[in-house]
Amino acid sequence: MSFSAADHQYMARALQLARRGLYTTDPNPRVGCVLVRDGAVVGEGFHARAGTPHAERHALAQAGERARGATAYVTLEPCSHTGRTGPCADALIDAGVTRVVAAMEDPNPLVAGQGLQRLADAGIATAVGLLEAEARALNPGFVSRMTRQRPYIRIKIAASVDGRTAMANGESQWITGPAAREDVQRLRARSSAVITGVGTVLADRPSYTVRPRQWRLAEYRQHAADDDWVRQPLRVILDRTLRTPPDVPVVSALGHCLLVAGEQHPGRQNALESAGAEVMLLPASGSGIDLQQLLIELNRRECNEVLVECGATLAGAFVREGLFDEILVYMAPTLLGSSARPLLGLPQLASMSEKVALKWQDVRQVGDDLRLTLVSA
Amino acid sequence: MSFSAADHQYMARALQLARRGLYTTDPNPRVGCVLVRDGAVVGEGFHARAGTPHAERHALAQAGERARGATAYVTLEPCSHTGRTGPCADALIDAGVTRVVAAMEDPNPLVAGQGLQRLADAGIATAVGLLEAEARALNPGFVSRMTRQRPYIRIKIAASVDGRTAMANGESQWITGPAAREDVQRLRARSSAVITGVGTVLADRPSYTVRPRQWRLAEYRQHAADDDWVRQPLRVILDRTLRTPPDVPVVSALGHCLLVAGEQHPGRQNALESAGAEVMLLPASGSGIDLQQLLIELNRRECNEVLVECGATLAGAFVREGLFDEILVYMAPTLLGSSARPLLGLPQLASMSEKVALKWQDVRQVGDDLRLTLVSA
Repeated sequence: MSFSAADHQYMARALQLARRGLYTTDPNPRVGCVLVRDGAVVGEGFHARAGTPHAERHALAQAGERARGATAYVTLEPCSHTGRTGPCADALIDAGVTRVVAAMEDPNPLVAGQGLQRLADAGIATAVGLLEAEARALNPGFVSRMTRQRPYIRIKIAASVDGRTAMANGESQWITGPAAREDVQRLRARSSAVITGVGTVLADRPSYTVRPRQWRLAEYRQHAADDDWVRQPLRVILDRTLRTPPDVPVVSALGHCLLVAGEQHPGRQNALESAGAEVMLLPASGSGIDLQQLLIELNRRECNEVLVECGATLAGAFVREGLFDEILVYMAPTLLGSSARPLLGLPQLASMSEKVALKWQDVRQVGDDLRLTLVSA
Repeated sequence: MSFSAADHQYMARALQLARRGLYTTDPNPRVGCVLVRDGAVVGEGFHARAGTPHAERHALAQAGERARGATAYVTLEPCSHTGRTGPCADALIDAGVTRVVAAMEDPNPLVAGQGLQRLADAGIATAVGLLEAEARALNPGFVSRMTRQRPYIRIKIAASVDGRTAMANGESQWITGPAAREDVQRLRARSSAVITGVGTVLADRPSYTVRPRQWRLAEYRQHAADDDWVRQPLRVILDRTLRTPPDVPVVSALGHCLLVAGEQHPGRQNALESAGAEVMLLPASGSGIDLQQLLIELNRRECNEVLVECGATLAGAFVREGLFDEILVYMAPTLLGSSARPLLGLPQLASMSEKVALKWQDVRQVGDDLRLTLVSA
């Protein structure tokens, strides 16, 4: 399959459009569409929010009659299932589009290729695989959920150069600077859920909300469709014995708070539910919650990307069980000393042969700090 | 004082020449010289090795009669003291040079400006301060010794992303990859001395030699004059009770080994001296050696740049006492776990207000590892 320079250009534009839904399409994927006829763009669209039209619908509506004979560039294979308004594949057929180029097939192996087949059956020329890596990178969580039945997991850590995340007494505010904390807002805004432990809730009283007014609203809007709606990630607190006080910010803040307990505590549960939180029971594992079961639950809730923002113990448990895709270390140019808390609670490793091998994915400066992004080797 | 574009160009060339002595001039500074007449370079030179001619002498020899009426660009103020062959300032006067541009004054405050004054007294136009920052950066150790009476101190650490330098059992070979270890060879080659502790000597049996044949010999020669002589840094072992066995590589390898004891052990001292090592006594401090006294001794021995390559405890002592100029962390994309040894033994810090503030000076990839260079904030 070969693609022209113009094909690349239009697909790149479709990817750019798809990114406008970065913070809002959840649990749907971010998708963009460009319609081109006679070398001119006649329609553009992107999916903005679950329950609103898909990218193809927006582009077709903008093109109107000019869609006839056009090529459609879509960052994801058009759907062939009937949602609120019928399959997008049918809409492209009905509009008289004569060629469809998709960056990638639907990642769900059960339906992959069906949309393109439906188009081909209607006599439309189809092609797939243009800028596919970029399209996949735009939806790592959706792809993970469809192919591995679990969310894409980022572990975020703020640390000193000597790999310390808090003083021995728990003090940790602030290791990193304002620019790094603002960058974490971007991570939260694109995540379906933020996961933390009760220890962090008690020590730091975080809210884990997305606060676009505190960062650059204009930048936020570039990825959040065109209204003032701010999607808040689900807040997931692992709290085996339900020690979370009902009046902490993580319970009372905007959005939904899910407390995951490992044992029954009816009185505490009632108080937390009265404060607006949801409480659910999952199997305990050691001193915590069974993380495999947690991820099954988050997958069931259609969580695409999840952000683990917690202390060294819980973060270490995710790493020990291999349940992560990215580790992001915001590293401040400081030393906190060897009595301070570790980067990750991983006390089991005894010899060099047991080391956890990673790969650098990205290294950049964020304000006065470094951001190191690592992935499994 | 204003300099022309041509002035900049010739001084940049003189700095380039000076760098050719990076590995060999010790304890002298690296110095380059360019002689220019009528817009043409008529002589070039650099100092190669203590006891051989200064940069100006080489350039004058190359220029011969063409030095008459020329401008001399020198990276360091010409000397006015009488060494083996008389002051370089006099040689420039005798050769008929009519203008001298120096990148920086002699950093020794007792003689700074005397060479330039001598030239000016002879009717020669003088100027100073062209590319001065670059010239100072070329000789951080020499400048430090002249202005602060102590060497320039680099602490080199190989660590994992979680800031660990060895497993709990001491195993540490190899955290970083071959490119990082080769880069350490460059650091050693430019250093007057390498400092380590007896613990590291016993655990890793290092030799701390410069081994240009094991890295890129061609690259080495670019900074090591024009013969096959390899200058070995002084190896300094802090060994309070003289536990170093006489047969370890650090004693027997090429170059000079200095063992610093904190108490008398005549038998052990005799054995080590028979094996070729030098033993000296310095005041003890806690479980180690008084580092201030050590630096006074190394200054007395004309050490310019010293490289601290040791375990977390000794490195932590240098940091705690503020006795460092650079910390270089070679960071491998691995996790060694929270039972592994720390980056630095700094157990005293208890609250965030006691953190050691640093600044990023440089961040780059070296093979599969990162090299983070930090300086005092």
